[in-house]
Amino acid sequence: MMLSFEDFPPGPFGSFGPRRVSREEIIDFAAEFDPQPMHLDDEAARQSMLGGLSGSGWHLCALMMRMLCDGFLLRTASLGSPGVEEVRWQSPLRPDDELMLDVEVIHSRVSGSRPETGIVTFGCRLRNAQGQVLLDAVTPIILKRRDPGAAA
Amino acid sequence: MMLSFEDFPPGPFGSFGPRRVSREEIIDFAAEFDPQPMHLDDEAARQSMLGGLSGSGWHLCALMMRMLCDGFLLRTASLGSPGVEEVRWQSPLRPDDELMLDVEVIHSRVSGSRPETGIVTFGCRLRNAQGQVLLDAVTPIILKRRDPGAAA
Repeated sequence: MMLSFEDFPPGPFGSFGPRRVSREEIIDFAAEFDPQPMHLDDEAARQSMLGGLSGSGWHLCALMMRMLCDGFLLRTASLGSPGVEEVRWQSPLRPDDELMLDVEVIHSRVSGSRPETGIVTFGCRLRNAQGQVLLDAVTPIILKRRDPGAAA
Repeated sequence: MMLSFEDFPPGPFGSFGPRRVSREEIIDFAAEFDPQPMHLDDEAARQSMLGGLSGSGWHLCALMMRMLCDGFLLRTASLGSPGVEEVRWQSPLRPDDELMLDVEVIHSRVSGSRPETGIVTFGCRLRNAQGQVLLDAVTPIILKRRDPGAAA
């Protein structure tokens, strides 16, 4: 069964994972999209503000998206997203981190211009097995309503 | 010569590109990080809100990061970033789009807690060869100051 707007009331939604991230994945992503020395080279990384090899913040965002897809979005009547309201990179992604994704619904509302849809704003938190928070993001997603005739 | 905090006064900074994005790149990124049908499959994409195959919004973000690196960040005394203030996906990324990145400095300030550094907030806009805006992002980056003794 596909999930719809109505299935996302405000509150905690679920936790997804774990997803282990290898050193090779970190370096491959950085080489393609964020080739700063702190994401590619151990010696340069040791001297960086983060004190050791760390993944690109955008890699964390991409991993969050994949975990959202696998967690529930691929079985949700999603129409896309207008953007991201906020991303906070709280702690560095390290080789062999095992990520968990906690998802909550911050708020949801029926679209004014397209009443057959609604916008659900998700709060997403990635943490590692040690409980450190790596990323917080606030991201709205447009979903189909199951019952567009119902009161907003 | 490395660029420092002082080299980023508020105002337009520069335009970088073009960067052509192939259909294969769009599908490869989506298969790894955002396997929604609208990013992978032509027929599903035709029926989607975006009316045809489109790249993941996170792919656009990653491409922006690479263009920032190639444009100036790899020769800038950057220490990293605390996050992203806002991302707007304005129009879909299409196969064979040629991206240009316009960068401006929205504001900059010396760090209160680490006066040897400053935070420069960049406004980044990706547009295609037809002049459509695909992405707007606001992203702060922490830079070393060349002359930490100078007045803030």
